[in-house]
Amino acid sequence: MKAITLEQTAQFLKEYDKYLILMHKSPDGDTIGCGYGLCMALRSIGKKADVLCGDPVPLIYKYFTDCVSNEGFEPEYIVSVDVATTKLLSGKALEYQDRIDLCIDHHGSNTGFAKYGYVNGKTSSCAEIIKDLLDIMKVDITKDIANAVFTGICTDTGCFKYASVSPETHRAAADLMEKGAQSGYICYMMFDNKSKSKMMLEKMVLDTLEYYCDGQIAFVLTTLGMIEKSGAVESDLDGIASIPRQIEGVKIGITMKEKENGECRFSVRTSEEIDASAICSQFGGGGHKAAAGCSIHKALPEAKKDMLEACIKMLEGNV
Amino acid sequence: MKAITLEQTAQFLKEYDKYLILMHKSPDGDTIGCGYGLCMALRSIGKKADVLCGDPVPLIYKYFTDCVSNEGFEPEYIVSVDVATTKLLSGKALEYQDRIDLCIDHHGSNTGFAKYGYVNGKTSSCAEIIKDLLDIMKVDITKDIANAVFTGICTDTGCFKYASVSPETHRAAADLMEKGAQSGYICYMMFDNKSKSKMMLEKMVLDTLEYYCDGQIAFVLTTLGMIEKSGAVESDLDGIASIPRQIEGVKIGITMKEKENGECRFSVRTSEEIDASAICSQFGGGGHKAAAGCSIHKALPEAKKDMLEACIKMLEGNV
Repeated sequence: MKAITLEQTAQFLKEYDKYLILMHKSPDGDTIGCGYGLCMALRSIGKKADVLCGDPVPLIYKYFTDCVSNEGFEPEYIVSVDVATTKLLSGKALEYQDRIDLCIDHHGSNTGFAKYGYVNGKTSSCAEIIKDLLDIMKVDITKDIANAVFTGICTDTGCFKYASVSPETHRAAADLMEKGAQSGYICYMMFDNKSKSKMMLEKMVLDTLEYYCDGQIAFVLTTLGMIEKSGAVESDLDGIASIPRQIEGVKIGITMKEKENGECRFSVRTSEEIDASAICSQFGGGGHKAAAGCSIHKALPEAKKDMLEACIKMLEGNV
Repeated sequence: MKAITLEQTAQFLKEYDKYLILMHKSPDGDTIGCGYGLCMALRSIGKKADVLCGDPVPLIYKYFTDCVSNEGFEPEYIVSVDVATTKLLSGKALEYQDRIDLCIDHHGSNTGFAKYGYVNGKTSSCAEIIKDLLDIMKVDITKDIANAVFTGICTDTGCFKYASVSPETHRAAADLMEKGAQSGYICYMMFDNKSKSKMMLEKMVLDTLEYYCDGQIAFVLTTLGMIEKSGAVESDLDGIASIPRQIEGVKIGITMKEKENGECRFSVRTSEEIDASAICSQFGGGGHKAAAGCSIHKALPEAKKDMLEACIKMLEGNV
């Protein structure tokens, strides 16, 4: 992949036409905000642009995703946003995995799968990059674009909470609010609005809380039974992963999800001195230093044992 | 109270000397951030300044409160920050309730108890006002001042989440980060760091969750027994009040706390169309439109019944 500057990225997008923008699987607010925001921006400067995500886009984002209907033209240039590796593509998006022209991302671990790439691992969110990109492209940011990009920034920063937030992150948010981003509504929907099912699920999850290594590791579990009993849906699981790491003294927070295909999915969140990505890569997963994930294809007790062992070794500095 | 501009407020503080800054009882991050931030700022321009809160200042704020030791001079000018009414003073601060010279506040409901006052009910936090004030006063904002003022802004906005946040709020945060405010650490300490006791208390609180009026009212309870069993301390109760209002469809979230003196303390959080302050004022309390509190001096079941009746009437538009 040839690394290009953000100015060159802007030039690329202004030069060509017929863009298809790929988002990662199990899409979050950042990839969706970037995909839809960039799509609307490109259309506003007269380009043809469509978005593609292999998985369904959660309805919670409809306040900006409803603004985009795909036109269905034959794409000439393929762009990916917030995609660290083509392993994170799914469904129909996989068809394009070997011909991605431009990658825009904020994962330092990006595998460099595209022809050209702008990757800035120091930026809070991919959406913060998109905000800068639109400024360079002199796009007139509409309320809908602002809502999309603001959503990406606030969801990927835990609402401006994480250490990745910089003064520029706040200034981008301020600019987007002036362009019409409905900050109060968006933050409420993303962070303060839990379904009754999610509330019940959270209570059940707290019942599973276990500590290891003198409270340095906290472990919680969601089972298929709990999801059924609470009536929770996939998006209700968002945020559960941050619960164990929030506990004072916890350096590694593990959330284990029982999946229908028999695999166990892990979300690992760590404090500064521990590399979550290094833990998860042992099981074929990855992510950021403070937040990573992986799957273990074993029964629940064995998968849990494997993960705990890896975490204990990491705590003891033996990895 | 004579309303003055922020420029006049700056002039007042630059003109005189020997300031005592009062904070409200059960102090939160905003009143403490303002008090300590303003105190450090006044000292930095050569003034004598001390802070006074009738209640103990929680240890969680020590990363900036440790920077200030009181000098104990005889104060000549009394300033209050984030205090809406003198009813919110306690302990030794009450001695000054009839001689407050300057009130700086962001509660629209401010009762105008001081000689001079700058009250801006549209600002996210009193700390955002202090930030503007320090800029007008051309104070050199040190890292410690920045940490104090940033803490006020982020705690009073639920980490930039509430509808009260404006582009100026984000720009103030950006400026303070550039002056050294440790955003990642502060947001972690304030929002992502729960003691094991608090976690246990939250689980118990979720067990008390009840819905009324087709899920438009959600009610939770903390009893003295729960606090004892979990080992929770006063500051662990922070944030509990926001739990019931987070539930989808809930317009009024009620948190009832059993207190040792036999009273029941209520925190009421409401959605846009409901005035929490109007509900609580019926019981001698007050606050903001979306967040208010009051005490009812009755046994638990009766106090709960009174509050629920008031909320149901408000929902039905009969108040």
